[in-house]
Amino acid sequence: MAGLVSSRGCHKIRGSQIRELLDSKLNVLFDCDGVIWNGETVVAGAPEVVTLLKQQGKKVFFITNNCTRPRASYVTKFIRLGFTDVAEEEIFSSAYCSAAYLRDVAKLQGKVYVIGCQGVVKELREAGVPIVEEDTNAPTGTIYDYPLDPEVKAVLVGYDEKFDFIKLAKACCYLQNTECLFLATDPDPWHPLRGGRITPGSGSLTAAVETASSRKATVIGKPSCFMFECIASQFNLDPGQSLMVGDRLETDILFGANCGLDTMLTLTGVSTLEEAHGYKDSDDPERKDFVPDYVVETIADFIEAYEEEEG
Amino acid sequence: MAGLVSSRGCHKIRGSQIRELLDSKLNVLFDCDGVIWNGETVVAGAPEVVTLLKQQGKKVFFITNNCTRPRASYVTKFIRLGFTDVAEEEIFSSAYCSAAYLRDVAKLQGKVYVIGCQGVVKELREAGVPIVEEDTNAPTGTIYDYPLDPEVKAVLVGYDEKFDFIKLAKACCYLQNTECLFLATDPDPWHPLRGGRITPGSGSLTAAVETASSRKATVIGKPSCFMFECIASQFNLDPGQSLMVGDRLETDILFGANCGLDTMLTLTGVSTLEEAHGYKDSDDPERKDFVPDYVVETIADFIEAYEEEEG
Repeated sequence: MAGLVSSRGCHKIRGSQIRELLDSKLNVLFDCDGVIWNGETVVAGAPEVVTLLKQQGKKVFFITNNCTRPRASYVTKFIRLGFTDVAEEEIFSSAYCSAAYLRDVAKLQGKVYVIGCQGVVKELREAGVPIVEEDTNAPTGTIYDYPLDPEVKAVLVGYDEKFDFIKLAKACCYLQNTECLFLATDPDPWHPLRGGRITPGSGSLTAAVETASSRKATVIGKPSCFMFECIASQFNLDPGQSLMVGDRLETDILFGANCGLDTMLTLTGVSTLEEAHGYKDSDDPERKDFVPDYVVETIADFIEAYEEEEG
Repeated sequence: MAGLVSSRGCHKIRGSQIRELLDSKLNVLFDCDGVIWNGETVVAGAPEVVTLLKQQGKKVFFITNNCTRPRASYVTKFIRLGFTDVAEEEIFSSAYCSAAYLRDVAKLQGKVYVIGCQGVVKELREAGVPIVEEDTNAPTGTIYDYPLDPEVKAVLVGYDEKFDFIKLAKACCYLQNTECLFLATDPDPWHPLRGGRITPGSGSLTAAVETASSRKATVIGKPSCFMFECIASQFNLDPGQSLMVGDRLETDILFGANCGLDTMLTLTGVSTLEEAHGYKDSDDPERKDFVPDYVVETIADFIEAYEEEEG
């Protein structure tokens, strides 16, 4: 790739440099929030970028740690925000991938005890993974006598606004069986809400279960590699021909580094160029994997790259 | 102390060796569960031991990470289990000490947001520390709009069977103010229940709040030193003249080591002599503080020690 500096350069690129990079890749993986939208606001130009990449013959994927929506609901959101050509099969959420892991990797013979929202439950049902059905209207007893299902062979923890002490206690009791799998959808510690508030993330609930059970969860979401393995196995991707585009250095960029992908930071989300340079200048070798190969202001810069070429 | 081997010896003692050790101390601090009782069953001889030590002019204290009962309720339990001479002032729970910390050390000017049970709430009220009163019957809103009290200047997390997502989210929102104190009653990750079940401990709930708030709690209970400082300031104790007796190496014995006390493991609770020797033989310097100076089968051995002397 003549004209581009070496990898992990945190190199700000535009125009023909972007075009050159994209020409060297077959697959582009986008994080969603902070990259193609912020909440319910689309990043200007993002729908055009997706269409353009597809016209150029690229495979495009959307990979999100958010476990609150099933894939079908993401399709609706893409359409609502002006995307015209995103298919359900291109969307990989931590909920979908958790269900895929239990079905295809763990080949679970038994039920899952779920701490999680409807996005997680729906994906598990869709994948045919049996879950513990609880009668939420019936009293579940005290911590001394709530019922435990002997068929439970896995505990899955994700974002759950109905998380409570009894759910935590049940998860820990299931996990006393060392053969019971322990999964978490994603490691996100918290999420910003409007008005400066924050809401606890899956990682926060997982920390409670980990502490009380003296066990560590297998985390499905970024930065662990499983979500890439999930896409790669379905679409036969080569890491060397794939680019990961994200807005969070500690999640998206580390994920790309962990999976052997080239990485691009876009500045429309959480992390800043200063933070990226901070990691680059750090003496801590573990922080080097937080340094992106490339940086763009916004993925809308992709449009200009192709226009320049054609102009 | 002729006749006794050097400190951190994990030295099993009885008879005159116990007598010699006790003669060299003015103060004896007992952990409760696993030392003087197990749940609702008294350790045989424990009431006599307390009386005997007091007759010998020792100051005796009870120091527990359990935050579920106020001190007055402990007095009732002592009487129920056959103790005749234990005073409320001799009982130091993590709930009492948390209230004392907020009143006397932090000198809190504002309210406390409490995740915790009635033991914690009652001790705070007793100490005159204002807490956020919540109408538990009223809907508290969604995570987007629940009310926050601007007078909150501290968050205190303890064991709470009514812990839920909204409490977690509120605690994190309060902690976004870096001037808001963050305390935890104790670090206990879980507790055993009858029937092989476990229940999550304060440490588990604290882990969730710590992860979601990106902050670390100041932990009041053992093994941190505050509970000893609390006793020492009220009763003018000299660490060198004090003995800590406990059943958990990682909590009680480490606490004693942290506070500069001689330590004694009793084998009526959780930890075993083998575990103590394992820490002694370990190459990890951090584990040396888990090694007790002395070991007894049960504190009832204290009775024999005094009988031998007098016989």
